[in-house]
Amino acid sequence: MVLLDHGSGGLASSRLVQEIFLSRLSNPILNELEDSAILDIGQQQIAFTTDSYVVDPIFFPGGDIGELAVNGTINDLAMKGGMPVALSLALILEEGFSLDDLERIMDSIARASIQAGVPVATGDTKVVPKGKADKIFINTAGVGIIEIRFPLTASRIRPGDKILVSGTVGDHGATIMTRRQGLEVPGQFQSDTMALHRLVRDMLELSGENIRCFRDPTRGGLATTLVELAKKAGVTMEIAETEIPVRKDVAQTCEILGLDPLYLANEGKLVAVVAPDVADELLALMQESHLAPEPAIIGRVVEQGIMPVVMETAIGGKRAVEMLTGEPLPRIC
Amino acid sequence: MVLLDHGSGGLASSRLVQEIFLSRLSNPILNELEDSAILDIGQQQIAFTTDSYVVDPIFFPGGDIGELAVNGTINDLAMKGGMPVALSLALILEEGFSLDDLERIMDSIARASIQAGVPVATGDTKVVPKGKADKIFINTAGVGIIEIRFPLTASRIRPGDKILVSGTVGDHGATIMTRRQGLEVPGQFQSDTMALHRLVRDMLELSGENIRCFRDPTRGGLATTLVELAKKAGVTMEIAETEIPVRKDVAQTCEILGLDPLYLANEGKLVAVVAPDVADELLALMQESHLAPEPAIIGRVVEQGIMPVVMETAIGGKRAVEMLTGEPLPRIC
Repeated sequence: MVLLDHGSGGLASSRLVQEIFLSRLSNPILNELEDSAILDIGQQQIAFTTDSYVVDPIFFPGGDIGELAVNGTINDLAMKGGMPVALSLALILEEGFSLDDLERIMDSIARASIQAGVPVATGDTKVVPKGKADKIFINTAGVGIIEIRFPLTASRIRPGDKILVSGTVGDHGATIMTRRQGLEVPGQFQSDTMALHRLVRDMLELSGENIRCFRDPTRGGLATTLVELAKKAGVTMEIAETEIPVRKDVAQTCEILGLDPLYLANEGKLVAVVAPDVADELLALMQESHLAPEPAIIGRVVEQGIMPVVMETAIGGKRAVEMLTGEPLPRIC
Repeated sequence: MVLLDHGSGGLASSRLVQEIFLSRLSNPILNELEDSAILDIGQQQIAFTTDSYVVDPIFFPGGDIGELAVNGTINDLAMKGGMPVALSLALILEEGFSLDDLERIMDSIARASIQAGVPVATGDTKVVPKGKADKIFINTAGVGIIEIRFPLTASRIRPGDKILVSGTVGDHGATIMTRRQGLEVPGQFQSDTMALHRLVRDMLELSGENIRCFRDPTRGGLATTLVELAKKAGVTMEIAETEIPVRKDVAQTCEILGLDPLYLANEGKLVAVVAPDVADELLALMQESHLAPEPAIIGRVVEQGIMPVVMETAIGGKRAVEMLTGEPLPRIC
C-alpha cells in the first residue's frame, strides 16, 4: 500500500524509487537520480526535469502553488548547470475549484515566469470530478541549456572540499506547517520560494569547475540532501551546527513543534560543494546577492568514515545526521 | 467555478485557455497552441510537450494509464515532427493506493517505453492523503529532436489538399465509456493506445514537405481536431461520412449510447493534411503499416466557406461539423 511516507523525499521515497521504479525503468540517465536528466541533443547538452506540486494550502505566506511550480523546476534545472529555456505547465483541476483562485495562481505563475525570464511554452489542463482531487495540482517540466563543459556531479566531490549553503534553512517547511495547522507562532518568516538560476550562473562564472556540484535541499531538507550527496560521493561530510543559518523565529517554532529545521523543505536555497580554494570567493559573491540571504560555509568533506554526515553540535558533541525517515509533513510542495 | 467541461478538449477548454491562460502567459511559442512547443537549442530544434493523465478506470481493455501516458506524450512530439529522445514521469499517488497496481502500471510504462525506444530520463513522486486524489495521476513530458527543415503547421494547408486518417476512430473513447459504466456491449473493441512516431517518420521520409501537418485526435475526437485545423488554416474541410473508418461494434455501441464516434477520443491515430499528389502514396504506406489499421482519405480542403468543416452524410445530405461542446465523458485520458 502506498503510504504518505513514500512521498517524503526521505528513506521510504528512496526505497520506492529503487525497488519499484528503477528496477523496471533502469537506464544510465535515470539511474543517476539527479535533479535533472542530462540529454545530448546534437552537439548540445540540455537539462530536462519534472516536478508535480500538491502543496496544501495552495496560498501561503511568501508565495503560492503556482510560483512554487515555476521556481522549483527552474531550480532543478539550475542545480545541474542548466540555464532554463522553457517550462511546461500541466494543471489537474478539481471540478468546482474557484476560477478566482485559478486566476490568482495564473497571475502568480505569469509573474514568476517573467521575473525568471523563462516562458511557459506548452501546457495541458485536465478536470476531475469534485472529490477526486484537492483543488489544484500542478506539474511543471523544464528544459535548460548546459553551457559548462564539466559535469556537476557528486562523484567530483573530494576530501578537503567545503560545503556552502546559500541562506537560512527550513523557512518553507516551517511556513507550510504552521499555516496548515493554523498555529500562532512567533516571527514573520515565510516561504523562501525563489528562482536560483542567476545565482548558479554567477557562481559558475566566478569559480568554474572548482564547483563540484549543487543541490537544492527541498523535501527531506538539508540533512537528507547532505546524506545523499555524501553517500553518492563515498565521503563523509562534517558540518557544524552553529554555522548552519536558521532564522531565530523558525528555530523557535521548530522547538515548539518538536521539529528539526534541518529536515524541513527549502524552496529557494542551494547547497554547493566546492574546492577549498574557492569557498571564500563564493561566500563573498553570495553575500552580495539578494538571491542568497545569510549564506554560510557550514562544513567540509573528509575521507569516508563510518557515517556519511557528522554534525558538531552547539554544545560541542558530535552526532550522526541521518536521512529523513517518516513523513513529518505531507504535501509540503 | 471550474467545470468538467473545461477539461473536455472542446469549446469550454478552448475558452479557458484563451481567457485565463493565454491572456497572462502569452508568448509566441505558447500562443501556437500546438501539440508540442518548438524550441531552438543552439543549432538544433527540439519539440517539448506535456500531458497529465487522469483516466478512469486506470486499467481498461487494450491498455492502462501508464501505457497511455507514454504513448500520448510520444504522439504529441511526433505530430510536430519531433523524434522522441526522452520522457519525464511524475506520479501523484493517493495514500492507500495498491502497490500491486502501482507495479502493474510501472511494468506497463516500462514495456511501452522499451517498445517505443524512448527512455524515461527523470521523474518525481508525490503522495497525497487518502481522498485527496483518485488512485493515481500521471504526468509525462517529453523532448524530441526535429530533423525536418519545414514546419508542420496548419498555416501550410492549401485548398486542394487531402485529409487522411490512419485508422478507425472512437475506439479509445468507446472503450473507456463502456468500461466505466459497466455496460455489456457488442464487439471486441479496445483502446487504440499506440506510439505513432515511427509512422510519422516513415511518412515524412516518403513525402517530405508535401505533408502539411499532423494532429492526433485525442480529447474532442476527429471532429474537434478538424474544426481546429480548418479555423487555424482559414479554409473549409469537406469530409465524407462514408469514408471515415469506424469499427462496426464501436458504431453500434455509439448508437446504443446516443454518441457520435467523431467526438470520441483516439489514442493511437493521426490525422494528416497533405498535398493532393502524395495522398495516394501515403495511403499505400499506411496500408502496409501495423501502426495504421484501416487508414483512409476522408476528405479534402477547399476555399474558406461559411463553416470550417462540412460533412457529406451517408444519406447524401450535407451538415456542418462543430467542435465538441459539453463533456460527454470526463477523465477519458
